[in-house]
Amino acid sequence: MSDKPSRAGRLRRAPENFIDGTLAADIARDGLSPTRRSFLQRSFLAAGAALAGGAAFAADAPKIAGDGDPMILEPRPWATSLGQPVAARPYGVPSKFEANLQRRQSPGLTQTAQASVAFTPLQGLFGIITPSGLHFERHHQGWQEIDPTQHRLMVHGLVREAKVYTMDDIMRLPSVSRMHFIECGANTGMEWGNAAVPTVQYTHGMLSCCEFTGVPLSVLLDDVGADTKRGRFVLAEGGDGSGMTRTISMEAALSDVLVAWGMNGEMLRPENGYPLRLVVPGVQGVSWVKWLRRIKVGDAPWNTKDETSHYVDLMPDGQHRQYTSIQECKSVITSPSGGQALLDRGYFNVTGLAWSGRGRIKRVDVSTDGGKSWRQARLESPVLPKCLTRFNFDWNWDGSPALLQSRAVDETGFVQPRYRQLRDVRGTKSIYHNNAIQTWQVATNGEVTNVHVD
Amino acid sequence: MSDKPSRAGRLRRAPENFIDGTLAADIARDGLSPTRRSFLQRSFLAAGAALAGGAAFAADAPKIAGDGDPMILEPRPWATSLGQPVAARPYGVPSKFEANLQRRQSPGLTQTAQASVAFTPLQGLFGIITPSGLHFERHHQGWQEIDPTQHRLMVHGLVREAKVYTMDDIMRLPSVSRMHFIECGANTGMEWGNAAVPTVQYTHGMLSCCEFTGVPLSVLLDDVGADTKRGRFVLAEGGDGSGMTRTISMEAALSDVLVAWGMNGEMLRPENGYPLRLVVPGVQGVSWVKWLRRIKVGDAPWNTKDETSHYVDLMPDGQHRQYTSIQECKSVITSPSGGQALLDRGYFNVTGLAWSGRGRIKRVDVSTDGGKSWRQARLESPVLPKCLTRFNFDWNWDGSPALLQSRAVDETGFVQPRYRQLRDVRGTKSIYHNNAIQTWQVATNGEVTNVHVD
Repeated sequence: MSDKPSRAGRLRRAPENFIDGTLAADIARDGLSPTRRSFLQRSFLAAGAALAGGAAFAADAPKIAGDGDPMILEPRPWATSLGQPVAARPYGVPSKFEANLQRRQSPGLTQTAQASVAFTPLQGLFGIITPSGLHFERHHQGWQEIDPTQHRLMVHGLVREAKVYTMDDIMRLPSVSRMHFIECGANTGMEWGNAAVPTVQYTHGMLSCCEFTGVPLSVLLDDVGADTKRGRFVLAEGGDGSGMTRTISMEAALSDVLVAWGMNGEMLRPENGYPLRLVVPGVQGVSWVKWLRRIKVGDAPWNTKDETSHYVDLMPDGQHRQYTSIQECKSVITSPSGGQALLDRGYFNVTGLAWSGRGRIKRVDVSTDGGKSWRQARLESPVLPKCLTRFNFDWNWDGSPALLQSRAVDETGFVQPRYRQLRDVRGTKSIYHNNAIQTWQVATNGEVTNVHVD
Repeated sequence: MSDKPSRAGRLRRAPENFIDGTLAADIARDGLSPTRRSFLQRSFLAAGAALAGGAAFAADAPKIAGDGDPMILEPRPWATSLGQPVAARPYGVPSKFEANLQRRQSPGLTQTAQASVAFTPLQGLFGIITPSGLHFERHHQGWQEIDPTQHRLMVHGLVREAKVYTMDDIMRLPSVSRMHFIECGANTGMEWGNAAVPTVQYTHGMLSCCEFTGVPLSVLLDDVGADTKRGRFVLAEGGDGSGMTRTISMEAALSDVLVAWGMNGEMLRPENGYPLRLVVPGVQGVSWVKWLRRIKVGDAPWNTKDETSHYVDLMPDGQHRQYTSIQECKSVITSPSGGQALLDRGYFNVTGLAWSGRGRIKRVDVSTDGGKSWRQARLESPVLPKCLTRFNFDWNWDGSPALLQSRAVDETGFVQPRYRQLRDVRGTKSIYHNNAIQTWQVATNGEVTNVHVD
């Protein structure tokens, strides 16, 4: 493309963009299948051959017409035909060429697909907003399509007057809109022991970020006359078959928790709790109770099943930590990342996401040598509290093996830990709350893989 | 719902939410059809009847079970059955109950649907992010689904070395992500003369707001060695059949203009320029050239068809203003708005959008008496430059006729004008750049209609 070596790099952004065929079929939990590996290898060799010939850009680049003044590109079919009408799709969908960018279930991770996870394809996304159609899913008894005119929310317990609200009742209340990330407490959970999964979709894809609209929970608590002195906790219960129940402190309930109906400008999607879910900024996703049907005010935590046998952190001494629900400062490079390949040397825009359940991201550093040296990344605006922050980083790859890492720091001064630091405190038996620094290894042939660096 | 009069209001947020049947069929350009009018009337009467009986909430509210302690809501089908598995929809879509929230073509507005407009349903949206599937459309020869591996961008003219870029070339360049509104210069164009269309979808729906990701145009201009002294302008050309061409000042080109591939986290949608479009923050949508295939650097404006016979402002003296492309400070109340109905008296969260092509919104005031008195609205965060800002406003409707207005002020001190002020300067013959204050009239029966207040 250019005479500048600094612009000479090319990235195979696939597996998910621009490639026909499915990824799920040929990525197994233990890495790339021979088919996929062979495909990437061929891509790499083809690119190498083109570059060896000195071509500045791809061999199939269009010829330039015109008399010396290269004014006109060779006409393409789409420039010489009548297109589709407006509102051909009253609700639009992505291009057919993007069909491989999907949320995907990790094969074999769970026994049933109703109590399972579908991961967001972070490797193919940009900015901080997660398209609602690619928001990660975590259900405990499958998702339901609830008729909003039939849905009810009860607020009761230590209140002056228990009430049952319809959606019409709730949606007329004073509303606020805020952008927040949501991360499952188990995100990156398969990585405690070793580098188990091949792509960032599976290592970090239980992570999404949206603009939520709803009524502050404090408004509802005020409306029922909640006793906020004796009532130190609220219980939130979901309307699906699992009846998910989670305890939330009254302090959080009165600060930034929302009872939300809006997500990215429209009503919540059924998979994400339509028509009503709790939004608990900074806290693990399980507490963002979906299909929300009940809020109870009480004077003690409820210790429900999903607060005692699940979503606890098993410590090295055999005890477990309960109610460790804040998602601590964390980051990950989303591209280049596992399963992608650098097709030649030169410039790459290294990009990723950083977030903290404690507030704003203050800084992100990137290392290309496994943490020996660090340089500061650019943060895209806006940088919002308890929200994803997109970072970008200029890198010239010289063809040597490299170890790509990112390290986030939040406004409280918390520095994202290395694996060794995390394990020194928490051991290796946990599933939840792994916020260690992720490493992507770049081999001399350009292939990127998931590896562990202590 | 409540013993507090301040919470007693109910809004029929439909026509678009929660109602089965189509809106397009029964809203004509001149107002609500008898069918729709009758439906709203029935809704209003039904609600009135329920309230007259003193019911705190809807008559079909579920019974509360349990022994005095109202712990359990009557079981619903979705709480007693197995739901859908994760990744049932690898790319999710809205609930079937939201099917009426669509972008819609205005019947009869244009002669063909390929050179036409589909409007964003602002009346049913929340926050500032427009769902990509509901982004407004304005095409000049229909939209095309372009194969990204075949797409090319040429940059030439007053440059050291003309270049042709593939998508791979472009997507490896340093990228930025920014949230911006895009508004067609003709938005609200039908309102110059009188209140012509019934809903905010048609008065203001050529307006959307997304997070865009791309490479700054300045990086590409640097890459080709553009002469930015002689080259005071760039021409942007689209790859569809209309070959849309627009002149942009070099000053804008070097500041915040992007060559973008990302929209709301994923690749652009075909209707919005997939795989590449120009993002020209603060400037009317026609300059955000879609399916971008060519950038030329030159020393004078090009005065193309769409800069001379269209997208010009006809002044009272018969002359026209050209290149008036900045979208000035503007706002609109999106709910309650035309076609909706207040179903009873009491509290309403009045909500809307404000924006300015000059920078950030500083303040929004709301009037309920046609501009005689004003109170300040709450602005939701984030408040970003050249981006939509969501505002909310508490209002207790006492049942009297009301005239709802919003008035935005931007950080330059520009105050959104009344119609009289706008017409004093610009007359009534224009189509483009109508940023006057919008008025929604609330009748004593709760119906909301589009009216003009000078």
